[in-house]
Amino acid sequence: MSRCLFLFIFYLFPFWILAGYAQLMNPHPIDSENRVTFTVNAPNAREVSIINLSDPDAMGAATYSLTKGEDGIWSVKTNPCRPGFHYYNLSIDGFESADPKSQLYFGWGKWTSGLEIPEQSTSFYSPVEGPLGEVTTHWYFSNTTNTLRKSLVYTPPWYRSQIGVKYPVLYLQHGAGESELGWTMQGKVNVILDNLIHSEKAKPMLIVMDNGYAAASGSPNPSRPDAKDNRFEENLIHDLMPSIEANYRTLNSRENRAIAGLSMGAGQAQRIGFAHLDTFSAIGAFSGAARDFDIESSFGGIFNDTDAFHEKLTLYWIGCGEQDFLYDGAVKQHNALVKEGIMHEWHVMPGSHEWQVWRRHLYEFAQKVFQD
Amino acid sequence: MSRCLFLFIFYLFPFWILAGYAQLMNPHPIDSENRVTFTVNAPNAREVSIINLSDPDAMGAATYSLTKGEDGIWSVKTNPCRPGFHYYNLSIDGFESADPKSQLYFGWGKWTSGLEIPEQSTSFYSPVEGPLGEVTTHWYFSNTTNTLRKSLVYTPPWYRSQIGVKYPVLYLQHGAGESELGWTMQGKVNVILDNLIHSEKAKPMLIVMDNGYAAASGSPNPSRPDAKDNRFEENLIHDLMPSIEANYRTLNSRENRAIAGLSMGAGQAQRIGFAHLDTFSAIGAFSGAARDFDIESSFGGIFNDTDAFHEKLTLYWIGCGEQDFLYDGAVKQHNALVKEGIMHEWHVMPGSHEWQVWRRHLYEFAQKVFQD
Repeated sequence: MSRCLFLFIFYLFPFWILAGYAQLMNPHPIDSENRVTFTVNAPNAREVSIINLSDPDAMGAATYSLTKGEDGIWSVKTNPCRPGFHYYNLSIDGFESADPKSQLYFGWGKWTSGLEIPEQSTSFYSPVEGPLGEVTTHWYFSNTTNTLRKSLVYTPPWYRSQIGVKYPVLYLQHGAGESELGWTMQGKVNVILDNLIHSEKAKPMLIVMDNGYAAASGSPNPSRPDAKDNRFEENLIHDLMPSIEANYRTLNSRENRAIAGLSMGAGQAQRIGFAHLDTFSAIGAFSGAARDFDIESSFGGIFNDTDAFHEKLTLYWIGCGEQDFLYDGAVKQHNALVKEGIMHEWHVMPGSHEWQVWRRHLYEFAQKVFQD
Repeated sequence: MSRCLFLFIFYLFPFWILAGYAQLMNPHPIDSENRVTFTVNAPNAREVSIINLSDPDAMGAATYSLTKGEDGIWSVKTNPCRPGFHYYNLSIDGFESADPKSQLYFGWGKWTSGLEIPEQSTSFYSPVEGPLGEVTTHWYFSNTTNTLRKSLVYTPPWYRSQIGVKYPVLYLQHGAGESELGWTMQGKVNVILDNLIHSEKAKPMLIVMDNGYAAASGSPNPSRPDAKDNRFEENLIHDLMPSIEANYRTLNSRENRAIAGLSMGAGQAQRIGFAHLDTFSAIGAFSGAARDFDIESSFGGIFNDTDAFHEKLTLYWIGCGEQDFLYDGAVKQHNALVKEGIMHEWHVMPGSHEWQVWRRHLYEFAQKVFQD
């Protein structure tokens, strides 16, 4: 009997599936005021809600309770949402579930639903016409973690045809709970760089995006590296970078290497960058102020020797959204750097702790880095 | 208040997140008999079950009802599961949800949970030591669909260093409800080919994996192309192939092009391959027998002129699992081909309509294709 049912289901497969496929490709409709109408087909549930995983303003409220229709479909029309990318999930009788109708993104430590509200007045992350960059999954063996790891590598338009050209490299990191996929899927890194390179606003470059979690070999809890067990720095310097430079046409000098990241990745970029000024010449910190920044002691006291710092670092770029919960800390860091005469680029823009800000940070940072 | 809550959550972010991350990296434990212990944290749900989306034998039963513990955690220990990859989902009070603890895969028209049961006695999809192939996301504009599309391209070990070498190309398609990601995520295409190439059992080749759904430009329902609106064939020949051959080091002759696929993709490989014998010289059909195969009329009557067929096609490879619901149809097709003296490779192996069989099909097919 169950075998018959199985055969029956499989013979209906193509039609059934196309319906599901279509669902995913038809996101919840968004009206002209950026109100989203969510529908969830859960006739036997007692309570269905939308959990906004970004700040409340991102989706107009922290949560929405859905109302069940006579057809068993639950629905709600949200308040106006902010343009950009917002994480959310469903709650089905209290169980947090990804929305099967949405594209999923790795965030919050698991595959999570995402809502993309178009920003009508900008085109910096709209696809260009003409030759396009690519994103390659590059696997490499890490002696640091004693595992096979994967990183994503953006190569610019014309990389495959201009085979005599070598490129500078930006190492670009995601935030806590995200993965090496974040900058491509949520961040649209390839689209932003293609735009900048086509308009000659940025130098053609490679962008290497690794997973910021790299548990020490022999760690008692390899799948859950806390800070003391996270060997991301060693992995980057001793495993990832040599593999990239052995396989790609890279310019292998400190002037042609930069490191940047968002949130947790901003902390990693600053810590690793300042610790390896013979390796990197540019650092970008997107929405990632040190929580207790102290000009004398932070980052190993790097700011105490201003001349040495200025000789080594050609770009120290700090950005933060004005509604970011880290904004006050970022302002404090900026003010301390100004007071000590430490050269840095300081970018403030409207926005919260969110991908729409980080897309803009990348857009701005990429125009400044590798400009000699 | 909600803002305070938001700040509170964000300050706890790194710890909270690492816990979630660890969850995903710790799949449900599998014992020595391949019994899986699933746990689901859903204290307010009334009914929780596992829905096995493969055949019942794959996970030992079609569904499992979980039992709620005093801590609100639901759990079940399954019957022994079959080695390989199996799609499944949770049901929470009747709502079908991906399992937040699992890696997700695009299948059944949406992001779906997957269970990987190791097969102890084989290593053909275990990572090799030494240089590794890569998988690149290649975006291209399709005039056929009037959209930007993406395909994945496997390039073999040494592709980036041996810059004078050109390669044959296999176009390889997924099944219904899956996507261009299937052969990499579920199929482990790169691991299988790396193995074969390192052991010199297969020729180094490129493998191009596109999305098998390509809605006609101006289609009334662009997100839901039914068969009559699906322009995959035109897209492949006129958009994808030229873009691949313009950007990669390919051998651009029919002798160096093959097309294969699984299930729905097997149908596409045969239909497109037979219709373009000036473009392709090898065809692979994995678990995708024509449902009403007729030697005189199927595939445009291609089998009526045996000599012409044999002159053009150097490899016609057909495989099927013995427990596949399409097995009888595959045997019928094979017998008809034998009776008419049509040369083909016929591969039968234990297994159902499942990725473990398709991994093996690829492993076998890749050793036969491009062997002159």
